[in-house]
Amino acid sequence: MTDLKQKILTAVRRDLEAIESALAELLNPHFDLVRQVAGHILFAGGKRLRPLLMVLCARLCGNQDPHTVQSAVIFEYLHAATLLHDDVVDGGELRRGTDAAHQVWDPPTAVLTGDFLLARALGLAARTGLPEVIDTIAAITEQMSQGEIEQMARTGDLSLTEADYREVIRCKTAVLFQGACRTGALITRAEPVRVDALGDYGHHLGMAFQMADDLLDYTLDAGVLGKKAGADLREGKLTLPVIHTLRHSDDGERRWISHLIGSQDVAAEAFERLIALLTDNGSIAYTRQCARDHIALAKGALSGFDPGPQRGVLSDIADYALLRTA
Amino acid sequence: MTDLKQKILTAVRRDLEAIESALAELLNPHFDLVRQVAGHILFAGGKRLRPLLMVLCARLCGNQDPHTVQSAVIFEYLHAATLLHDDVVDGGELRRGTDAAHQVWDPPTAVLTGDFLLARALGLAARTGLPEVIDTIAAITEQMSQGEIEQMARTGDLSLTEADYREVIRCKTAVLFQGACRTGALITRAEPVRVDALGDYGHHLGMAFQMADDLLDYTLDAGVLGKKAGADLREGKLTLPVIHTLRHSDDGERRWISHLIGSQDVAAEAFERLIALLTDNGSIAYTRQCARDHIALAKGALSGFDPGPQRGVLSDIADYALLRTA
Repeated sequence: MTDLKQKILTAVRRDLEAIESALAELLNPHFDLVRQVAGHILFAGGKRLRPLLMVLCARLCGNQDPHTVQSAVIFEYLHAATLLHDDVVDGGELRRGTDAAHQVWDPPTAVLTGDFLLARALGLAARTGLPEVIDTIAAITEQMSQGEIEQMARTGDLSLTEADYREVIRCKTAVLFQGACRTGALITRAEPVRVDALGDYGHHLGMAFQMADDLLDYTLDAGVLGKKAGADLREGKLTLPVIHTLRHSDDGERRWISHLIGSQDVAAEAFERLIALLTDNGSIAYTRQCARDHIALAKGALSGFDPGPQRGVLSDIADYALLRTA
Repeated sequence: MTDLKQKILTAVRRDLEAIESALAELLNPHFDLVRQVAGHILFAGGKRLRPLLMVLCARLCGNQDPHTVQSAVIFEYLHAATLLHDDVVDGGELRRGTDAAHQVWDPPTAVLTGDFLLARALGLAARTGLPEVIDTIAAITEQMSQGEIEQMARTGDLSLTEADYREVIRCKTAVLFQGACRTGALITRAEPVRVDALGDYGHHLGMAFQMADDLLDYTLDAGVLGKKAGADLREGKLTLPVIHTLRHSDDGERRWISHLIGSQDVAAEAFERLIALLTDNGSIAYTRQCARDHIALAKGALSGFDPGPQRGVLSDIADYALLRTA
């Protein structure tokens, strides 16, 4: 474990424990099968990053209420719901190193459990009694589903631009980070300028986080990632490294890459040749730089807050998101 | 068209027109594909019963606000979302006489469009600014997903009792009717006793409606129902007529029925023999009587309201729900 990760985990240990308890406590389903399937996705070693961000942003705004974690779990339930649906959509077999729920049970069960978690998240949002919080959370869900639909509709579409890609990852990832951070501020009734600043922090962190994730697909093996490397390529999902490389390739290379995209059977040799091309074209470095730029903006958004341990851990989390790409 | 149906349609024509416009206006998706898929399910000749009930219950409580329809569409979006997911879950090929969305596009697109509609419904609920409305709508979604999961988990399970069946149809159908009617009262800030009375009306109407629907599966042909007759049987879905008949059959008949349930290839002759058995055992009549009992309770729940055209149309709708089973 890196020193930075250890430092973050020490700082947030108590919050993480409180989140963990609340996740189990508030799930409370009517039928046992729902508990099993939801538990399979929820308690399989997630980082709890989204609820943690919400709690940390609330604390940074001066929130001392121990019940804050009860609203924070909203963001883990939403995240789990989208993972369940996305795995059905993508046909992904592994999730966090274990069989995806639609493999253990079946796709319908995964879809309906996702619906339950979505509803539970929105029910908890309703419980806050704050219309702006409820609105934020409903808007997140809308944008995430639309982002996923757009991504799916453009599977294998080589005309996807960097701007298109940025819009897709904003919808599918950054809005949830942004919403978690905003909600932390909203629930503490922080001034609008602070709500916006923490929303910006979350947005940029989310953008960088997804870029880092997309990069890992071309730099790590299955054991570390908990899913098969090159999965995006096989699913025909164009991410920034490949979009950049297509822009900097000649016709022959473009044709070769277009054959690889969406191919279920990419030989290890071909995958290695693709990675060499991504490296030679500076596409790995470019993606890393884009992520770095977003992290700088995320940290910049914190500048209006007093320095101290609360701001420090949010800044450390931003640095850590970047470290994953190195 | 029956006289009663004509009478109802004349009474609610303006409300239906307003609902129809609001459904298109408030959909407003970010991506064109979402518009197409959501439009496919939304504008394929639905009866708009759920939003209509909401509007009529609001009017009965004295609501004159022309914007009420804007919250009523919540219940059609929720309904459409669950239809999209249920068709994926059941593998249903036809919906309202046309190809189901997951057949025209694919299951993932249907799942994600369902998510979008769910989120839009909850976003519109948030816009009412009434915590009790938001809570009601989140609870509906939770219960509907749990009801579907339970139904699916018990597919082909011959030990399903009438009480189990009632709990499943309560979750999957009646809570939405109940929620629509309650919300009509809540949004008009009606007294709690009226909120509860209209909730009861909706609950019993929903129970009767689903029983009538389940009965149609054994009494009508594909053309009228817009889906294949006997679909529940083929999907292994035990509904009240069959549950009642299993209770009144001898061992031989029970074995024969258990072979039929979940069988993809039920010969017309076997299906006719099953219907004869349902008739001889009084199971068709029993189901019809249960629906009739719920309709009587639904109409009874209206007794505290002043007689007049508003109460009259809700009462007519209850009678009409029953007429479908005749």
